[in-house]
Amino acid sequence: MHIEIENLLQKIKSFVETELYPLETTENLTGNFSQIEPILLRLREKVKEVGLWGLALPLDMGGKGLSLMQFGKVSEILAKSPFGHFTFNSQAPDIGNMELLHKYASKEIKDKYLNPLAKGEIRSCFSMTEPEFAGSNPTRMGTTAIKDGDNYIINGHKWFTSSADGATFAVVMAVTDADAAPHNRASQILVPLDNPGYEFVRNIPIMGHAGDSWASHAEVRYNNVVVPRSNLIGKEGEGFLLAQERLGPGRIHHCMRFIGIAERSFELMCEYATKRELAEGKYLADMQSIQHFIAESRVEIDAARLLVLDTADKIDQFGSKAARNQISGIKFYTANMMLRVIDRAIQTHGGLGMTNDVVLSFWYAHERAARIYDGADEVHKSSLAKSILKEYRK
Amino acid sequence: MHIEIENLLQKIKSFVETELYPLETTENLTGNFSQIEPILLRLREKVKEVGLWGLALPLDMGGKGLSLMQFGKVSEILAKSPFGHFTFNSQAPDIGNMELLHKYASKEIKDKYLNPLAKGEIRSCFSMTEPEFAGSNPTRMGTTAIKDGDNYIINGHKWFTSSADGATFAVVMAVTDADAAPHNRASQILVPLDNPGYEFVRNIPIMGHAGDSWASHAEVRYNNVVVPRSNLIGKEGEGFLLAQERLGPGRIHHCMRFIGIAERSFELMCEYATKRELAEGKYLADMQSIQHFIAESRVEIDAARLLVLDTADKIDQFGSKAARNQISGIKFYTANMMLRVIDRAIQTHGGLGMTNDVVLSFWYAHERAARIYDGADEVHKSSLAKSILKEYRK
Amino acid sequence: MHIEIENLLQKIKSFVETELYPLETTENLTGNFSQIEPILLRLREKVKEVGLWGLALPLDMGGKGLSLMQFGKVSEILAKSPFGHFTFNSQAPDIGNMELLHKYASKEIKDKYLNPLAKGEIRSCFSMTEPEFAGSNPTRMGTTAIKDGDNYIINGHKWFTSSADGATFAVVMAVTDADAAPHNRASQILVPLDNPGYEFVRNIPIMGHAGDSWASHAEVRYNNVVVPRSNLIGKEGEGFLLAQERLGPGRIHHCMRFIGIAERSFELMCEYATKRELAEGKYLADMQSIQHFIAESRVEIDAARLLVLDTADKIDQFGSKAARNQISGIKFYTANMMLRVIDRAIQTHGGLGMTNDVVLSFWYAHERAARIYDGADEVHKSSLAKSILKEYRK
Amino acid sequence: MHIEIENLLQKIKSFVETELYPLETTENLTGNFSQIEPILLRLREKVKEVGLWGLALPLDMGGKGLSLMQFGKVSEILAKSPFGHFTFNSQAPDIGNMELLHKYASKEIKDKYLNPLAKGEIRSCFSMTEPEFAGSNPTRMGTTAIKDGDNYIINGHKWFTSSADGATFAVVMAVTDADAAPHNRASQILVPLDNPGYEFVRNIPIMGHAGDSWASHAEVRYNNVVVPRSNLIGKEGEGFLLAQERLGPGRIHHCMRFIGIAERSFELMCEYATKRELAEGKYLADMQSIQHFIAESRVEIDAARLLVLDTADKIDQFGSKAARNQISGIKFYTANMMLRVIDRAIQTHGGLGMTNDVVLSFWYAHERAARIYDGADEVHKSSLAKSILKEYRK
Repeated sequence: MHIEIENLLQKIKSFVETELYPLETTENLTGNFSQIEPILLRLREKVKEVGLWGLALPLDMGGKGLSLMQFGKVSEILAKSPFGHFTFNSQAPDIGNMELLHKYASKEIKDKYLNPLAKGEIRSCFSMTEPEFAGSNPTRMGTTAIKDGDNYIINGHKWFTSSADGATFAVVMAVTDADAAPHNRASQILVPLDNPGYEFVRNIPIMGHAGDSWASHAEVRYNNVVVPRSNLIGKEGEGFLLAQERLGPGRIHHCMRFIGIAERSFELMCEYATKRELAEGKYLADMQSIQHFIAESRVEIDAARLLVLDTADKIDQFGSKAARNQISGIKFYTANMMLRVIDRAIQTHGGLGMTNDVVLSFWYAHERAARIYDGADEVHKSSLAKSILKEYRK
Repeated sequence: MHIEIENLLQKIKSFVETELYPLETTENLTGNFSQIEPILLRLREKVKEVGLWGLALPLDMGGKGLSLMQFGKVSEILAKSPFGHFTFNSQAPDIGNMELLHKYASKEIKDKYLNPLAKGEIRSCFSMTEPEFAGSNPTRMGTTAIKDGDNYIINGHKWFTSSADGATFAVVMAVTDADAAPHNRASQILVPLDNPGYEFVRNIPIMGHAGDSWASHAEVRYNNVVVPRSNLIGKEGEGFLLAQERLGPGRIHHCMRFIGIAERSFELMCEYATKRELAEGKYLADMQSIQHFIAESRVEIDAARLLVLDTADKIDQFGSKAARNQISGIKFYTANMMLRVIDRAIQTHGGLGMTNDVVLSFWYAHERAARIYDGADEVHKSSLAKSILKEYRK
Repeated sequence: MHIEIENLLQKIKSFVETELYPLETTENLTGNFSQIEPILLRLREKVKEVGLWGLALPLDMGGKGLSLMQFGKVSEILAKSPFGHFTFNSQAPDIGNMELLHKYASKEIKDKYLNPLAKGEIRSCFSMTEPEFAGSNPTRMGTTAIKDGDNYIINGHKWFTSSADGATFAVVMAVTDADAAPHNRASQILVPLDNPGYEFVRNIPIMGHAGDSWASHAEVRYNNVVVPRSNLIGKEGEGFLLAQERLGPGRIHHCMRFIGIAERSFELMCEYATKRELAEGKYLADMQSIQHFIAESRVEIDAARLLVLDTADKIDQFGSKAARNQISGIKFYTANMMLRVIDRAIQTHGGLGMTNDVVLSFWYAHERAARIYDGADEVHKSSLAKSILKEYRK
Repeated sequence: MHIEIENLLQKIKSFVETELYPLETTENLTGNFSQIEPILLRLREKVKEVGLWGLALPLDMGGKGLSLMQFGKVSEILAKSPFGHFTFNSQAPDIGNMELLHKYASKEIKDKYLNPLAKGEIRSCFSMTEPEFAGSNPTRMGTTAIKDGDNYIINGHKWFTSSADGATFAVVMAVTDADAAPHNRASQILVPLDNPGYEFVRNIPIMGHAGDSWASHAEVRYNNVVVPRSNLIGKEGEGFLLAQERLGPGRIHHCMRFIGIAERSFELMCEYATKRELAEGKYLADMQSIQHFIAESRVEIDAARLLVLDTADKIDQFGSKAARNQISGIKFYTANMMLRVIDRAIQTHGGLGMTNDVVLSFWYAHERAARIYDGADEVHKSSLAKSILKEYRK
């Protein structure tokens, strides 16, 4: 099995380096996603041809049936290109929605939505965050789903509904019972986006870019959106429970993506340092400050990777609940590490590092969000500490 | 005089807050500069009407004749809006070029270029950095200016020629004597950009944006550009000397701009912290982590401001040479401080901080360059230390 | 006046370098204070001879009548030797007690205690912190002073009563009215330490040293200590008010001491870097990492100094209350700066830096407390932020 | 095997907590080692009784034959008490000398020195660093061993010969062939310290303490010390080779010790945070700043542990050479992590943290050296980077 995985990783690495690195042109790094999307869709066919499709899918859906730890290693490699996850149909939020539907959706919904999603024929989004409420307290939420006969009527205002632009459906978090205990108030409901009550407000400009298609973060409104009650995912009131469950694996996906980005930034830094001449025969690589950037980055990346893989392994073996503290800890640790490494790589590149002639500034701008989404650093740290301190308070 | 300056600062502050803050719309923060330029040009008329034109100009050019320290305080206020310096015609690189031409250009050049520049009728650029050579060693340069009768023939490849797009002329740094000692090789020559040999290659995409007009950083080529020898600024071989002289005041301008940006980010952070509710009656401002962001930022900004103003005062009193060590020190210190404050302000804003609905992400992306241009941190630190250690080596 | 002050500073500097630096022997840096005390007491006579006595005293007590800002500059120089403040009788806590008694004590107490203190004939201590209560909340206090006729009967348990060992009296903070509002509960009462109820428990070992005499931090108990009510300093219930007043100047003293220590550490670092050979002709000073230590330290020290002197100037001009925010800010900023500089100086010295053959490790161990006493970093940061945010909440 | 190791670790942990934690009295943490030594020697008997002797010894010497990774886990637990390693006879430098003699010494030397060392009957030291030469360049060395018939005559000046006080022998690094290539110049020679030419200069005061016995760092001189040539360890000229070999396992020992200290500091921080009341019902543990100390420490310790154990595993499997880069990286990473955690734990304890009433200040003072000895941070970082960049230069 070990050799098999190593071979698989090697094949993916080779694909990413050969097919995707050359796509990192200045144009592709500054243009909207829709510009490069057709190329990536064609590459998906190639992925299928070489037998690398379905890396994130379970065996029963024609996937590889990788453990979380194994897929973590895959994810690191995919993340070394900004186009990796999409090309392999392993991109958020679709990957999370596939897991969700696979576990909790009815046969009908699976047929209608999960299968085309797994084939890469449609895209989806996850609609949770609201502009009016602080993300650090997810139980405060204004969106409601009121039962009306066999239907839900959904009303609400969401943003950071990533990839809504062009998506076929959203999984919407909405309050179904305002009087329940905070964690039992909300449910997850599948909403097809061709619904007349669905209002796409805008793709929110982030770091100067509204973006489009998969690479965008939408503000949307649900205005009396009517969906059948059979579109409920899981049970009523289980919204947070399912979100929680999504969290463990989702956190591993994110963190391994951060590590892949850090690793690639590291490689670019080393390459440039040995290439850039400062004076006759003297290179950036000879500067102690650059050497220290490199040494610190090397160790920090390795330590973070071991920590995330160890967490994945714990989840694989004992489940998300048992690994709860580690899952809290890896996110802020790995996100900050990644941002430090990107920053050092940019500094090493000097003016070039600011440009889109290399991929670094793309990540600098877009990955700053890593310390915010899916729980801000400050929230994770407090939550981890509280969990630790509970033992000591006894 | 003190009261007069305080009044002036107050008037500028009021103008910036009333006229410029409202321009920070999502559209203006994501669009190209040419979109908002007409509005700013109209505001320049208003600036003239209220008697605030020429803040950076000497008395004999109808300016205010401010000392460097006084203009430093002005510059901080202008920097609180991304449109401040341009609206007051105090923007780099024009402000530096005005100083240069005022001191070293012939009557003809002053009439033809300095006067319209001072009136805000034309723009200019400064063409020094080359992609082929590391900026940390400015004496390595490929651009040459060969004497040919009464002319220079200039050939070379430059980038980060900021604001070249739409500029009337460039001040070009070119080697005039390759056999001279490294610091005497280059000269500064004024090149009108309607010259047939001038090739505008592109506005380099930076953090995802090529930008345009004043807000852009061009790659250009000089292909057998012919200009009269009377376009030489200063004397032949004085290129670095003049660049050096530009440096002291230029450094103060940059640093005070950093401080203005930090101060504005600080204000936005405090405002948002007191406005954003986390739970019934509990605000971001009540979180100790946010409080610490605020306290640390307050002290760091104040310390940096005192240091920069003290340096400006030394330059005013004793000249750039006497303040050499301080001039080296303020740049890396202040740039890093600014970036930390912006980062904390973004973190405080959460998801909103990533968007262009507030100005912070604009600065996050564009001001990262502050640790690179005009001397990377690493270069400044080593150079300051070497100067200090010279005393100890004796 | 400016020249006068410069001359004074020069004379003090010369004294410190000539008389005190040579005392930094390994023995003196490791032994108890009582070992070197006789030498320092003899040097005090020399201080008087050269007219430098009474630097911290007001004019009417035969002092120099320096402003807080001027004394701040003096204090920086004294701090460059661990023996500076004591030799010039400007050491905490006596300097604070002198200010207190000068302002608030009766004629009798002044005659009996302030005059010999100012002459350096006796020493004193300040007894506030209690082991049972967190220092971050000073209004929680167990020590009581119960009125009994013309007397107070004091009971309580204190620690970090610095310099109690050998002191003639303590100023004790004790609750005189438990039912008053928190900030009006306590009073300051002078307690002669030859009192039978006074129990000296121990000098608390700090970083491995109990120390003795002035250089010690005692745990003490007041067991039915009886003192006349005329020993009250100021009015009843004014304990915190007086402590507050002591705070502004005291903070300046502390911070300028931190800056003096940082400056001296900086000098030692530069000297050693240029002296220590790594290989034939290659010195520590040639290492970029050491250069960066030096450059960063230079700028950080200068910025901190400007900030503290600016605060002192504000207190001189407008009083402690008006400078309240700055007074909160300088402590954590300057203490952390000092500890970074000491740390870099030690790292530059390598193994030697760990030894008591240079003064650095003495400061490393003993000055760590700077981030704790007189308000922990965390407390100051929150308090500064709350004060700032009050404006924004409106 | 896994369960066996877990049992072993559990037994050691229980011993350390029951027998050693209670020894952390203020007296023992401030006094010289000779004060507590008799107690620890008695505890060694107890260690033998419960079958825990020889944790670091190979099977053929009656030890446990633990792999490096397994012993690493042991070492972490021992390090949680300042008395752990000594009590289990696993203390540096004896543990390294045992490894050395076991591999390279003659039967005679083993009988005479290794066996009593393994039984804990004698102590030893390692004499390498010299005050006159920078430790960052170990090939520069003044100590010589001149062949004279069957003897070596050794002359030299060493310091940081840790634990020389009371040691029976030293392993001395001395130049045996000054004309050889730098790395072949020196040899390791065993020198019995009852030699008339051996001069014990002093125990160097470190952070205020000269210390004594095992807990000391001596300055010594070798004045025409005569030893038989059979005291040579390994071959002539192999001094650095053997030192190198010692390095891999030695680094693991050090790093796991750092991790043990960090873990214990973490536990003390958590305990105190939940115990210390700030106001009625409000504890330190409720402060977000303290929570963040705890969360950051938790993750940093865990990441460092995984990295060091992974390195140990690589050494176990493929040898030190194959793990060279990792061995370079773990030292600076782990040492800095430990110092951060100790620092946070002290800050959490407030004034108490400065005292010797808890063990933290002991570690704060003594473990600062971790960033210096066995290669300063700066040296390791550059060396790691150079090794990485070698691949990229191709």
